Amino acid sequence: MNQQSPQPDVNNNAIKPIVVGLLGYGTVGRGTHTILLRNAKEIARRAGRHIEIKSAAVRNTKRDTAGPINLTTDHQEIISDPEIDIICELMGGTEQAYSLIKQAILSGKHVVTANKALIAIHGNELFSLAHERGVMIAFEPAVAGGIPVIKAIREGLTGNTIEWLAGIINGTGNFIMTEMRDKGADFSSVLEQAQALGYAEADPTFDVEGIDAAHKLSILASLAFGIPLQFEKVYTEGISRISQEDVLYAEELGYRIKHLGIAKRSNNGIEMRVHPTLIPHRRLIANVDGVMNAVLVKGDAVGPTLYYGAGAGAEATGSAVVADLVDVVRTLTADPEHRVPHLAFQPDALSDLPICNIEDIATSYYIRLLASDEVGVLADITRILCDNGISLESIIQKEAHQTSVTQSVPVVMLTHEVKEAQLNKAIKQLATLTTIDSNIYRIRVETLATN
Amino acid sequence: MNQQSPQPDVNNNAIKPIVVGLLGYGTVGRGTHTILLRNAKEIARRAGRHIEIKSAAVRNTKRDTAGPINLTTDHQEIISDPEIDIICELMGGTEQAYSLIKQAILSGKHVVTANKALIAIHGNELFSLAHERGVMIAFEPAVAGGIPVIKAIREGLTGNTIEWLAGIINGTGNFIMTEMRDKGADFSSVLEQAQALGYAEADPTFDVEGIDAAHKLSILASLAFGIPLQFEKVYTEGISRISQEDVLYAEELGYRIKHLGIAKRSNNGIEMRVHPTLIPHRRLIANVDGVMNAVLVKGDAVGPTLYYGAGAGAEATGSAVVADLVDVVRTLTADPEHRVPHLAFQPDALSDLPICNIEDIATSYYIRLLASDEVGVLADITRILCDNGISLESIIQKEAHQTSVTQSVPVVMLTHEVKEAQLNKAIKQLATLTTIDSNIYRIRVETLATN
Repeated sequence: MNQQSPQPDVNNNAIKPIVVGLLGYGTVGRGTHTILLRNAKEIARRAGRHIEIKSAAVRNTKRDTAGPINLTTDHQEIISDPEIDIICELMGGTEQAYSLIKQAILSGKHVVTANKALIAIHGNELFSLAHERGVMIAFEPAVAGGIPVIKAIREGLTGNTIEWLAGIINGTGNFIMTEMRDKGADFSSVLEQAQALGYAEADPTFDVEGIDAAHKLSILASLAFGIPLQFEKVYTEGISRISQEDVLYAEELGYRIKHLGIAKRSNNGIEMRVHPTLIPHRRLIANVDGVMNAVLVKGDAVGPTLYYGAGAGAEATGSAVVADLVDVVRTLTADPEHRVPHLAFQPDALSDLPICNIEDIATSYYIRLLASDEVGVLADITRILCDNGISLESIIQKEAHQTSVTQSVPVVMLTHEVKEAQLNKAIKQLATLTTIDSNIYRIRVETLATN
Repeated sequence: MNQQSPQPDVNNNAIKPIVVGLLGYGTVGRGTHTILLRNAKEIARRAGRHIEIKSAAVRNTKRDTAGPINLTTDHQEIISDPEIDIICELMGGTEQAYSLIKQAILSGKHVVTANKALIAIHGNELFSLAHERGVMIAFEPAVAGGIPVIKAIREGLTGNTIEWLAGIINGTGNFIMTEMRDKGADFSSVLEQAQALGYAEADPTFDVEGIDAAHKLSILASLAFGIPLQFEKVYTEGISRISQEDVLYAEELGYRIKHLGIAKRSNNGIEMRVHPTLIPHRRLIANVDGVMNAVLVKGDAVGPTLYYGAGAGAEATGSAVVADLVDVVRTLTADPEHRVPHLAFQPDALSDLPICNIEDIATSYYIRLLASDEVGVLADITRILCDNGISLESIIQKEAHQTSVTQSVPVVMLTHEVKEAQLNKAIKQLATLTTIDSNIYRIRVETLATN
């Protein structure tokens, strides 16, 4: 790469650069700064203006920075600096960040943020305020890191009625699921490894219990369907209960287990759910491994489209921050009423489609249990399922398993589509059988069929 | 999908709809029209305005349309209609379309086009004229159909120095390569099948010889590197010489053959090439099958990102046409100098980086030949390769093959990276060996490694 890029156009010297102030200078702040310095020419060739970070508000001003900027512990100094055009919120959290962004909007500054929790929880209010004040809040880095998936849905698929989307939107979770399959390791040992590698936090709850994915899913669902952000209505189930056995049985059945965020337009409203999911191993998204993210979007006109890339990391997320900065620069002169709406749909055209209760959602299921190796056990199980309107696509009875007392056999079943409420009822009844020697584990199955 | 979308905001009734005129009403024109009618509410909820097709210029006005529009055989009527805001060129070809688009620009109308050949050949001139006149030419449907990959590169990756991109950007070619692998069929029988299915034209040259892919690649390369369109400098090689044996040997070596368009920033300038390519079968893009398209883009900050979807078809391409219409609507009020530049970089910041000659490009190669089953043959082959500075990663000598006269054995080799000129020299020398009983076939190999 020793090729010289040409100088940005000569006129640029005459144009005042766009000045950015950072709130927070951690991993993403540093990544953003590094990119703006290293690719300064390339970015100016595109944006028509130079983009410069003037200062950053941090907790400790003694830290190193990627280049010459002012560090301050006074966040107000950044927000009230009249030279600063755009505020970049990269500090995380939902309290201080919320109040600072609000102040920034009220001061007439545009905002770029990587903060998914903040958008998921306070987005409705902040977008409304920003709309009122004629400023932009850009948040591409908040979902799927460097993948321009917000732009794709919000601008690239505007011709479509979006039917559903399914995403691997948490890299930690996907790393764990991938390692469990590739290495045959169990959840807790892979989690430890992920923590050692820095892919998982010391307290991994947000990632492995699906809360982070739920934040992102609620954002994607709003963009896809034109509904207000409703994080609190996302059904969320983590991956900590997935066992090595489930991973192996899924493979044997031609499936892979992924932790997916799914948003779907159904007859009863909008489904929003984050849970481990068996998907056919031939699907492209089933082959998205390690910490990578991918979002599969099904539009009625375009069919399925998929967006893949790094969902986290200093420069991958920084890439999305810079893209948003350039977007804001390019839109500065546009009539605010004609800008791309924050949630893809015009604020006065948002829909109040109901969000489905998980009990009313129908999917297929993978069910695993241990049953006594006795005559009639399978008949009992299938009768209960049948009585509850559940038909089976396949049933596998494995080799006998020596447990401490009795001889048990693992039974693995795939059901046809059934409402969750029905399945729960059937599982309750199954649990009363004295011939079932274990908990009854179930994982949802999605074919992600696109036609 | 019996859920009602809400009405677009009430104010919309007061806003004049955006009026579109079509040049051409074939597959894509009809698809676009169908989408605009079916998703009218959803589109207006996003764009803030209704988008309506008023009329279409066609060769024969007796044809059916998807809804109420005027058909005319007089293209001028569309261009000079003062009620029409945006001209959609969906007629194809590079002569009449070129002159009509020019007239549209001169009349101050914005243009949306799906015409890759036109953009690849006349884009530099047309963009310059459009820039002068302050109008937009949008061309998302010209590359990879419904996948918003132009938007991704032009707007989503603006923070990156793009290092390379590799795309499956011709659905016909990918269908053929997929069927050859899945069904074990040979090129000509799969081509016939593709023609019967309507995936390939009666004269398939544009698709199977890579010309269509080269049009698209030259566009992607300009967007990625900020260089003028230089279609004539794309090295182009088709898939018609790929045999069933190559497909099988590639699989055996852990590779898959895909017809790729590759653009790469190298030390000598920019590489632009379309050719069959062996890629490791575990890469996500190696698993893009059938008529689907995908573009893998490697940015220095974001790393690899991939965009996947339908590359052709009435509504998939129509989806991109509508997205461009909405983009134009959203940008109407912006200062023309601040719009997203046609070729991603500011027109006065385009670079004159040289385009590499194919002889100067280094890749690894797959080589296949038939050699006499005699002592010393492999030694002769490897000596010639070695003398030309070519080292082998692997060599497979297969079981003997009964040919009419002598006994020959297929020899399959994978080389390390070598300049094309060196390889050509070696192949010339190999061809003089009397112990080589066949043509010497070679296919480039790319690892598409992303770190």
